[in-house]
Amino acid sequence: MSTPDPVVGDLTEGEILAGILDRLAPSRALLGPGDDAAVLAVPGGRIVASVDTLVHGPDFRLAWSSATDLGWKAAAVNLADIAAMGARPTALLVALAMPDTTPVSFVHRLADGLRSACDELAPGATVEGGDLTVSDTLTIAVTALGVLEGVEPVTRSGAQPGDVVAVCGAMGEAARGLSLLFERFRVDGRPVPVSGLTEADVALVGAQLRPRPPIAFGAVAAAHGATAMMDVSDGLALDAGRIARASRVTIELRADALGQDPATALAGGEDHALLATFPAARGPAPGFRLVGAVHARGDHPLLVDGEPYRGRSGWDPYRDWDSASG
Amino acid sequence: MSTPDPVVGDLTEGEILAGILDRLAPSRALLGPGDDAAVLAVPGGRIVASVDTLVHGPDFRLAWSSATDLGWKAAAVNLADIAAMGARPTALLVALAMPDTTPVSFVHRLADGLRSACDELAPGATVEGGDLTVSDTLTIAVTALGVLEGVEPVTRSGAQPGDVVAVCGAMGEAARGLSLLFERFRVDGRPVPVSGLTEADVALVGAQLRPRPPIAFGAVAAAHGATAMMDVSDGLALDAGRIARASRVTIELRADALGQDPATALAGGEDHALLATFPAARGPAPGFRLVGAVHARGDHPLLVDGEPYRGRSGWDPYRDWDSASG
Repeated sequence: MSTPDPVVGDLTEGEILAGILDRLAPSRALLGPGDDAAVLAVPGGRIVASVDTLVHGPDFRLAWSSATDLGWKAAAVNLADIAAMGARPTALLVALAMPDTTPVSFVHRLADGLRSACDELAPGATVEGGDLTVSDTLTIAVTALGVLEGVEPVTRSGAQPGDVVAVCGAMGEAARGLSLLFERFRVDGRPVPVSGLTEADVALVGAQLRPRPPIAFGAVAAAHGATAMMDVSDGLALDAGRIARASRVTIELRADALGQDPATALAGGEDHALLATFPAARGPAPGFRLVGAVHARGDHPLLVDGEPYRGRSGWDPYRDWDSASG
Repeated sequence: MSTPDPVVGDLTEGEILAGILDRLAPSRALLGPGDDAAVLAVPGGRIVASVDTLVHGPDFRLAWSSATDLGWKAAAVNLADIAAMGARPTALLVALAMPDTTPVSFVHRLADGLRSACDELAPGATVEGGDLTVSDTLTIAVTALGVLEGVEPVTRSGAQPGDVVAVCGAMGEAARGLSLLFERFRVDGRPVPVSGLTEADVALVGAQLRPRPPIAFGAVAAAHGATAMMDVSDGLALDAGRIARASRVTIELRADALGQDPATALAGGEDHALLATFPAARGPAPGFRLVGAVHARGDHPLLVDGEPYRGRSGWDPYRDWDSASG
């Protein structure tokens, strides 16, 4: 006889919370979890704040993602938004809404994933607050907070004609991992049997399920004088086009700089690489590689090898998701 | 022929966002919505941060709450958490996950409600960021941020024997409004026909659907020397017990100070009144009324008129919600 795995409906909110707090890193805040709100020191007097949500169905499937993967990804994608401003992430607030049939062990592994991502990608960032509620749809909304250490925030709108365009981090790998998952594990409802995958395939699936955005390089880029920056969440084409529109310039990318699969790098999202522009005289920051150049505004916001980009342009949740097919 | 009401699935994320931003107050941030993250000034170098989620089913029903009500309540309950620390709310981040069949007009009215609550309850607080995603379950996760203006944060753990206990705001009204809704409008699926209600009943239903926490009085209490404070979200008994446990004291409440329906004031949540303790020599802050006293720790954390409290103790989402009955 095995002991049944308790579900969150068997425990009080306080008991569930205690199990989560046991797994998180010790608070670094002036006042951490347990009161009405957290209180955080903000050296420099400016806070950078962002929120992003992972929803069961459109954003993840439990047949593919483990609870640890989900916690990791929820942290990673939000840390990337803070890094993309040139800031250093300091704290996360995690709002977790889940069915009362969710195993308590699932919640614990999710907390493990949050902690691992913070420890490995953004040392010094900790979960400092959150909210537990019940929902028919498992939903993880993470707010990330960060500080600017002596630099100005790097927006999307500062790219200048003559700047170089550079990327730090993976391009297209998460999308290729997603394609693998769709092609090979569409309806079996079981975790991915990695024994049947090549080592390269395992890495691509990992890039989708546990992305590793180069968080520390956001502040590096800002200190190096980046004129514009964002994290690539919806594909290089869509996100480079966003910088071009916000900055009123044209961006030209070189396909031969986009790795072995330029089409996927352009159209595939979720790597959360950092895309930035730098004055040509300074060149890219350490860790960034050149992928293109900024021109005066032309007829098209985005060129690839001199031609207007006509390919697929990344993910829009209200166009691309059909819950009936999910 | 009428023009059909478009749903969010008909629009791009950018189009939906533009309609929301049109309805919000102008940004007061160093950098408002539109980039990877917002950048906020934090005078004093300390930020107060909290997150709370409203989920369709456990937290609201669309037969009872209008979209404007939902936007209002999502803002109000989060503003209250910031006020309960003695801080002034400055910004909200709103993560909105909704079915692609949600009417666009619903989203617009929700934005109107967010703005109205900020304007009326916490002038100076604005929505400075957020996230839109699709979900089978309508979910509104709001992060609230605030600043401490020359005061220390007021936690739950500072109540001292000899302090007085005081409340600012409504007690039990939201719970009585919820009872009215359950008794009279259980399964009809239509908005509440207010024409059939007395004026007093309308006010109680309004207290449930559009609570008015006394946000500005949080900072007033802190400046007056409050030793402990929290907002009453789960009923006065449960929340007074939380202060008592965190402060290692016993709190005694006087039933005759709890209004016309002390049992509902003790057990009923969601008013988001402010419950605070003050040194007896100073007495309650302006706007607060005496409801009890703090004693040295005894056998019970909470007494009512000298007797241990044995009544119902408020809302726990994992004990009290059964999605099958929702």
